[in-house]
Amino acid sequence: MSLSNISIDGPRLLADLHRLRQFGIHKTGVHRPTYSEPDMQSRNWIADRMREAGLTPVIDGIGNVIGRGPGDGPRFLLGSHSETQNHAGWLDGALGVMYAIEVARALGHGVDVACWADEEGHYAAFPGSRSFIGELPDTEIAAARNRYDGTPLPDALAAAGLAGKPRARVEPGRYRGYLEAHIEQGDDLERRGLRLGIVTSIVAIWQFRLTFTGIQNHAGTTRMAIRKDAGLALAKLVVEIDRRFPAVAGPRSVWTTGRITLDPGAASIIPGGAEMLFQLRDSDPAVLERMQAELAAIVADSNRGPCEVTLHAMSRGVPKLMDEAIQNALAQAAERIAPGQSQHMPSGAGHDAQLLAKVMPAGMLFVPSIGGISHHWSEDTAEADIVLGCQVMAAAVADLLAAT
Amino acid sequence: MSLSNISIDGPRLLADLHRLRQFGIHKTGVHRPTYSEPDMQSRNWIADRMREAGLTPVIDGIGNVIGRGPGDGPRFLLGSHSETQNHAGWLDGALGVMYAIEVARALGHGVDVACWADEEGHYAAFPGSRSFIGELPDTEIAAARNRYDGTPLPDALAAAGLAGKPRARVEPGRYRGYLEAHIEQGDDLERRGLRLGIVTSIVAIWQFRLTFTGIQNHAGTTRMAIRKDAGLALAKLVVEIDRRFPAVAGPRSVWTTGRITLDPGAASIIPGGAEMLFQLRDSDPAVLERMQAELAAIVADSNRGPCEVTLHAMSRGVPKLMDEAIQNALAQAAERIAPGQSQHMPSGAGHDAQLLAKVMPAGMLFVPSIGGISHHWSEDTAEADIVLGCQVMAAAVADLLAAT
Repeated sequence: MSLSNISIDGPRLLADLHRLRQFGIHKTGVHRPTYSEPDMQSRNWIADRMREAGLTPVIDGIGNVIGRGPGDGPRFLLGSHSETQNHAGWLDGALGVMYAIEVARALGHGVDVACWADEEGHYAAFPGSRSFIGELPDTEIAAARNRYDGTPLPDALAAAGLAGKPRARVEPGRYRGYLEAHIEQGDDLERRGLRLGIVTSIVAIWQFRLTFTGIQNHAGTTRMAIRKDAGLALAKLVVEIDRRFPAVAGPRSVWTTGRITLDPGAASIIPGGAEMLFQLRDSDPAVLERMQAELAAIVADSNRGPCEVTLHAMSRGVPKLMDEAIQNALAQAAERIAPGQSQHMPSGAGHDAQLLAKVMPAGMLFVPSIGGISHHWSEDTAEADIVLGCQVMAAAVADLLAAT
Repeated sequence: MSLSNISIDGPRLLADLHRLRQFGIHKTGVHRPTYSEPDMQSRNWIADRMREAGLTPVIDGIGNVIGRGPGDGPRFLLGSHSETQNHAGWLDGALGVMYAIEVARALGHGVDVACWADEEGHYAAFPGSRSFIGELPDTEIAAARNRYDGTPLPDALAAAGLAGKPRARVEPGRYRGYLEAHIEQGDDLERRGLRLGIVTSIVAIWQFRLTFTGIQNHAGTTRMAIRKDAGLALAKLVVEIDRRFPAVAGPRSVWTTGRITLDPGAASIIPGGAEMLFQLRDSDPAVLERMQAELAAIVADSNRGPCEVTLHAMSRGVPKLMDEAIQNALAQAAERIAPGQSQHMPSGAGHDAQLLAKVMPAGMLFVPSIGGISHHWSEDTAEADIVLGCQVMAAAVADLLAAT
């Protein structure tokens, strides 16, 4: 087990992360939307860092920066993404990219680095990693638009200087696996006093649209007794979910009503229609099935009231299991370097690793988020935790390479 | 009591109402927004009908059509509005305007007719009748915009050919009172098998904005136990109102949550903010006070939960009592012409009569709405009820004129 007395350069890693933060800096965080000027500047800067690390970088036709190492031996692909949510944190994505480059520098061999494009979904769901595994058709690129300002994706690619560039594809057999480090984005490590999370699976997201149909009418002249208020029916259903779900949910299940719209949504009109987006996340398909069944039962109960409710399943994902050998390597390295300071845990958020997991063994390592905050400029992680995570990742990759 | 053996011409009234429906006809209803081409065509057509009835019409600088009768004797002002809500009914407003003209024709004296502009509030709250009573400042006109498409009111007035025209003002002492006929817009007359409603008061509307502040966070990584979900807090409060208000409300009180917004309103983000518009209506100030106190108590209870809730009173109107002598004249005429088929009742909707009531005695007469439907193209009233209402109004006005 002494194969991995490899050591990363903590100050160098931190200096690079702080430099990367300058691209689109916003308060203590970053505003670096996909294909924006700071995003493309940062991708070029990342390509330069890859080159310095002895890799050969290309920025491909979707904006992925892929740095390939020399030689033909066994190798791992390490990476994450570099763009951010709007006015968001400095480590979400950036941490995993700089870990990958630092591990490449520390090991000197056996590592390729990927900096994926648009994991944050400004234009599409994981277009960078999907492109790399061959699951992003040209037709989808042609039709995609920025979800905030409507800019067509082809226009954004052209403005970023990426039009016509080839898109990098995974070479079959090249990699032993994929590893991605990321901030936890929750407070589970922090509240348990732990510093490292070895990801067991990336939870599945099940999305539903619930549509309520009542009767639109005048808010002054329609007696309470005869109203069919779609907004009230919706509110009752949201409260019923809150009341009944804890009994069927798993210990880490989460559920969210993120959007509510009333039709027509005017002060003096009883809403005749209403709609809500509802989402479940869990890593256990049996728990997800149980929660969906309870949701259907709640909808059936609601349909005994004055309004009609329909439940439409928009998407039902599959939990992505992380590779056991990679989990073991991460756990052993963590236990060696920081005994008793790690745990296994699922990821509640989606990551590019769930796409890479479709074509190779994949694993993820989490470091704590202070206060559980992410997708906000105040997002942060203690510097000692940042350095520790990279050290554990380097040791695990060294072990994995030595074992192959 | 035989003073009022005056008789209106039912077929003529119905023919005029059907002709007026042609301006902006939509299915069996009408789409005639304020200052639109069909609205201005209809106002010119109405002015022509006034002229035929022996009145002298002017279309004033806010779009009111005011038809003044000859002579100096005692007189009443009769009227309503002619524009419609978008894709709405053919009688809401139009009925009262054509009743006024028909009564002027039937009586031949003692009647001026008003066709108010924008009672439906495309640009402002009752700008036509407020202009007439001197409560619409030029500064408000300059700042007002169409609530659907943002067109500035001065631009709309210019496009309608009204720019620079003087605005008609009520002449002090000219009128003994104001009468307005209108469809009920509710189902109270219908379900009681009645045909005429003598309005006792126009209910007050109290509007509130409730703002919920939680913490915006990631819908996948934030445990249920630590969430501060502003949308859930809102839903619980809406349901609590539904549960607790019946105990404090009056028999005709109504309350409505017409608009709900979540911030940011995305499927994968726990709402950090939420807002709702909530409205109470009743004709009894004591009942309104009781309902507001209960709302404040519900808000206080909600503030013991994870989110902060603030209650802001946007407006608290005063119920407008209709004049007793006018109510009596309407009730006696109704009893004479259609015995046992009328009732006294408040108006749950606002009407121009509540503005005129500030400067002269005012009254209103309701006819039934089939199925209680209004603000929808399917709005309708039985032709026999339309004719009966006008006959009763003519008789009441004749009696009132004879009594002065």
